[in-house]
Order: sequence, then structure tokens, then C-alpha cells
Amino acid sequence: MIHTRLTQMLGIQHPIILAPMAMAAGGKLAASVSNAGGLGFVGGGYGDVDWLTTELANAGDAPIGVGFITWALDENPAALDIALARKPRAVFLSFGNVAPYVDAIKSSGAVMIAQVQTMADARAAIDAGADVIVAQGSEGGGHGQSRATMSFVPEVADYIAAHSPQTLLCAAGGIADGRGIAAALMLGADGVVIGSRFWASGECLAHQNMQNAAMAADGDQTLRTTVIDITRNKNWPARYNIRVMKNEFSDQWHGAEDALRKDGAAIDQWNAALAAGNPKIANPIVGEAVGIINEIRPTSDIMNDIMAGAETLLAGTPFTQN
Amino acid sequence: MIHTRLTQMLGIQHPIILAPMAMAAGGKLAASVSNAGGLGFVGGGYGDVDWLTTELANAGDAPIGVGFITWALDENPAALDIALARKPRAVFLSFGNVAPYVDAIKSSGAVMIAQVQTMADARAAIDAGADVIVAQGSEGGGHGQSRATMSFVPEVADYIAAHSPQTLLCAAGGIADGRGIAAALMLGADGVVIGSRFWASGECLAHQNMQNAAMAADGDQTLRTTVIDITRNKNWPARYNIRVMKNEFSDQWHGAEDALRKDGAAIDQWNAALAAGNPKIANPIVGEAVGIINEIRPTSDIMNDIMAGAETLLAGTPFTQN
Ligand SMILES: Cc1cc2nc3c(=O)[nH]c(=O)nc-3n(C[C@H](O)[C@H](O)[C@H](O)COP(=O)(O)O)c2cc1C
Ligand SMILES: Cc1cc2nc3c(=O)[nH]c(=O)nc-3n(C[C@H](O)[C@H](O)[C@H](O)COP(=O)(O)O)c2cc1C
Repeated sequence: MIHTRLTQMLGIQHPIILAPMAMAAGGKLAASVSNAGGLGFVGGGYGDVDWLTTELANAGDAPIGVGFITWALDENPAALDIALARKPRAVFLSFGNVAPYVDAIKSSGAVMIAQVQTMADARAAIDAGADVIVAQGSEGGGHGQSRATMSFVPEVADYIAAHSPQTLLCAAGGIADGRGIAAALMLGADGVVIGSRFWASGECLAHQNMQNAAMAADGDQTLRTTVIDITRNKNWPARYNIRVMKNEFSDQWHGAEDALRKDGAAIDQWNAALAAGNPKIANPIVGEAVGIINEIRPTSDIMNDIMAGAETLLAGTPFTQN
Repeated sequence: MIHTRLTQMLGIQHPIILAPMAMAAGGKLAASVSNAGGLGFVGGGYGDVDWLTTELANAGDAPIGVGFITWALDENPAALDIALARKPRAVFLSFGNVAPYVDAIKSSGAVMIAQVQTMADARAAIDAGADVIVAQGSEGGGHGQSRATMSFVPEVADYIAAHSPQTLLCAAGGIADGRGIAAALMLGADGVVIGSRFWASGECLAHQNMQNAAMAADGDQTLRTTVIDITRNKNWPARYNIRVMKNEFSDQWHGAEDALRKDGAAIDQWNAALAAGNPKIANPIVGEAVGIINEIRPTSDIMNDIMAGAETLLAGTPFTQN
């Protein structure tokens, strides 16, 4: 067992947080990660209240958290009330200014987790009173920016040590096994946030065709793009883009975004492919770690394996020292 | 002391390789890294024979290696002969197909090191017979591509374990202190390649104004661009770009590359600024790790600190296990 400040603050066994993946992390996946000793999150995403209500129910009474896309919450703050009424263990916000939400979250008794993409974001979230900062690297699946995990995590760790030592730090982006967890702890993190590895689980809401396409890919086969925010009609601020698997559709439209915006037939084709589970047109949302993920597995098996790997690496190093 | 397959193969004390930084890693820096227990490299870059001859002499009789930009060597293969005549401990090639050079390098007695940016590159370099693969993450300073260190290194490690277990692996990109070294070893690397941290040393050929500007920056203040390959009139293949510090010049011209190509005055202005050491116009070449590098120091102090940090982290983890 690896005890860190994160396991202590959240009251969990393993320093592993499930990323609140919009549409993918439903109640079943969240509960399964919590039941395996981590902390599961329902991916509240853009704040769809019906979806959220259903998935909170699907989590049963497992201790879980809820995540939202911050700029979308600004447009729909009622979604946060629904989440807080469930008494989540934590609320996870990413992609926007968390300051307006910190008090409501903390006074509900939930831990306030802020995922950040830049040092400027990290400083702002710490100033706003976040309990946990998640330094998100660009290799991760889903939305993000350009800083990569390897130097971003220690830079945030240095800032926290100097300015706010009581704030905790997690690493996100590219972590999918015990090696990544051990590395993140070496970089100064108190724990990790894992998306792609749990996306490739039996409990995830992603379409199985999408998952299978990703299992066949190596890590070179993803890109950061805005193409699928155009097809999905999501109004993302320009600083963010999204890491997805490359396919025929992104080969055609990445770099031709203005044309895509005007091409209703192409947009319809993408959305039909998403509904049908056709990964040649609709892009699976997954990170570079897809190259070290080879099998769809039950969450509990994933958790057992990654923790056993991390514990072995951290218990004694394979490097002779003298 | 941390012994790995890399320290053994190269006959060095610490598993640390100096990146062969074109124009920045001269003989003095290379010798100082080797004298501190790592392996220093002269940055042969584009193969300028006069510069190379001078810098090989400046290394004295320290055991060092030499690096080249592979596609530039294709245009100027004589530079390799000059390097091999010096009996380097190793030759480090990056950015191109290494196959034409492997035999000459290995039969000279030098270790053949290939830096790669994608899994496709890694597979090709292993097939060509490289002794050491360097998996380079996009957070690194200088030229590269988009894969990031955190998941690229373990993916190459898995490939090597399955297909060529005798091949060694180093991590590059974002590593600047003991935390990064410990993390890289956890990810499955046998050692690390460090550029930016040694660029910010007293022995580096970079202009002191450039170094000072970088010391004041955080890690958000770099970008990958092609702007400075246009100003320097370097004919880089389209797949590569270069990570540099943002400044007024890149703010103006990044995204306006076609216009820059036609603007001789802007190009002249950049080159004059480089000669004068003006970092507001000429971009320092440095990686995201600049955010965890705060002081220009002698190489030997840098080496002592990063190795002490790594040894402490690897000797016993700060995470209670039970
Ligand atoms: C399918 C998918 C959906 C995601 N959706 C969200 C989201 O709605 N909100 C959020 O904060 N992060 C989201 N992320 C990003 C994660 O929070 C996390 O930063 C990322 O998954 C970490 O990198 P990894 O995928 O390599 O584990 C998503 C990631 C994936 C893979
Ligand atoms: C100033 C500078 C110049 C570089 N020049 C070269 C080069 O000529 N050839 C090469 O293979 N790599 C070059 N690189 C990239 C390094 O080999 C290495 O991948 C990178 O520095 C690692 O990331 P780091 O800067 O975060 O340590 C250069 C890096 C820097 C910072």
C-alpha cells in the first residue's frame, strides 16, 4: 500500500483518481474505481442535468466525486447544486476560473480539486483556495493545452512548496500503469489522475468499437485538434484543444477547420458515426498512453495491476546503488 | 551511485548524457560533463567542419561523443569522418534515417545512439542496429515532434522488451533535476539525455543574455515553432519544429510563416539580435524544463545536485508502505 497526503485527504486506499470523463465516466465506472480503492468521478462534463441525475443514481451509494468543465458550469451553474446534493467526496473542475465555485464546494464538505494546464492557471487555482491541483500534461486524452507532464508536475510542486505547502498535487496525462504512478510520485505528486486507462475498461460508457479501435493503435496515432469540437458544436475557448485518435475524418479536416464549419454534411456524417460506433469517422477520445494500453479489462483488474507495479518499483529500485 | 545498463555500456559513473546541442555544446561543455561522471557530446549539428574541428580540440582528451542532425549529415557525410577520426565514445544521431551510418559508427568502436520522436522512428532505429534509443519528448528544448516523455518512454521500453531486449533506452525531454532522473528510471529508461539544464551552465556556448532571459521565464513561456528555422535559413523536413522561448518576434511571426519567408528585413533583424545577444528578438532555444531551472551554474555543481537528488529519491521512497 502506498500512503500519500492524497490517500489521507480523500480517505482512500490508493492514490488514484478517475478522470471525470464527460459521457464516458458514468456512475458504474466511478463506483468501480472507488470500490477498487481509488476515488471514482462521474464526468458531469457540460452539465447535462438529466444525464448527471441518471449517472449519480448508477453510482449507488459508493463514495464518489463529480467533475465539470468549468466554463460550461458558468453557463449552467444549477448542475453543481445537483452534484452537491449528492454529497460527493470531491468536486473536480477543469478548463476555466474555479474561484466562483470554491466556497460552495468546500462548505458542502467536498474536497475542491482544480485541474490546470499552465503555471498561470496553477497560481490562480491555488490563490482561489483549491485543495488539490491536478497538473495536466498535453499527452493526456481529452481537452487540454501544451505543457507536458514531465516538467509541468515538478514546476507546480516547486511553486506549491514555496507558496502553499498545504495544497496537494496530482499528475495527469500519460499515466496508465505502475511505471507512470511511480514516476509521478518521483516528480513530486501526491497522486495521479487517470483517464485513458480507465476509458479502456469494461465499466466505461464508451462504445466497444471505439475501445477496440484504440487498443489496436500505438501512441503515435493521436493528435490534438479542434475538429471534433466543431462537429459536436461545442463552444470551447480558443486556448484549449482535444486529444483524440487520428482517423480518416481528422486526416481530412484537421487544418481545414473553417471549411468544416460550413460543411453540414460532414458534420452530420461524424455524428452519425459516433452514434453507430464507427471509429473510422468518429474519433475515439484517448491520450498518447493508448500505446501502453493493450486490453479492455475490468476496473478492479486494472487497479490491482497498476498498484502492484507501482509498489514493486517503489519498494526497492532495480538500480544497484553503492 | 546509480548503476544501469547505460553506465556499463558507456563506461561512465552516472547515467547522464549531455544532449549534443548544435552551437551550444562545444568541447568545453562536453568535457565538463564527462569529467563530472556523465558522457558529454559535442553538438556537431549541421556538420560545420571548421566549428567541429575547433570544438573537438577544445574537448582536450576527455572521453566524449559527437552528435549530428541526421538529415544534415546526408548532405555532408564528411563531417562524420572527422568525428570518427577523434575516436568518440559514442555518436548521437537524431532527425532522420540512421541506417546508412550504423555500420561505420559501430565498426569504429563507438556506441551508436539514435534519438527518436515517434514509435515508427524507434522501430526503424532498432531494426537498423542502434545500440541506444533516446525517446525524445516534445517538452524538450530544440527540434522534435509531438510525443511527450511520460508515455513515450514506457511505450518504447515495452517495444524493446518484446523485440530487442539488448537495446538500451534513454529518456529525453523535460528532465532537469533528480526528480526527472528518478522518474525516467521508473518509466523504464536506462538513463537520461539532458539539454536545457546543461545549456544553463557556465560552460555552455550560449550567450549570457540568452541564458539570463531563460532563467527569468517559467515553463509556460516556450513554444514549438518553425519561425527560427526560417530566420536561420535551415531546411528542416516538415515533420519537425523547434521548441524555443517565446518573445516579441515569435509573438509576431508564429502563425505568419509565409509572410516571414518574404520579409528579409525581419529575418535580418532576428539574425542581428542573435549576434548581439538580444533575447527579445532572437529566441533562446530551451525546453519547458526552463521553469524548474533557476540559476546558471557550473556543470559539476549541476551534476552533483541532480545525482544527489536522484539517489535520495531512489534509495528509499518518502511514501509509507505497509
Ligand atoms: C474520454 C475522455 C474524456 C475526458 N473528459 C474530461 C472532462 O469532461 N473533464 C475533464 O476535466 N477532463 C476530461 N478529460 C481529461 C482528464 O481529466 C485527464 O486530464 C486525462 O485523461 C489524463 O490523461 P490520460 O488520458 O493519459 O490518463 C477526459 C479524458 C478522456 C480520455
Ligand atoms: C539549445 C539546444 C540545442 C539542441 N540541438 C540539438 C541538436 O543539434 N541535435 C539533437 O539531436 N538534439 C538537439 N537538441 C535536443 C536535445 O537532443 C534533447 O532532446 C533535449 O534537449 C532534451 O530536452 P531538455 O532540453 O528538456 O533536456 C537541442 C536542445 C537544446 C536545448
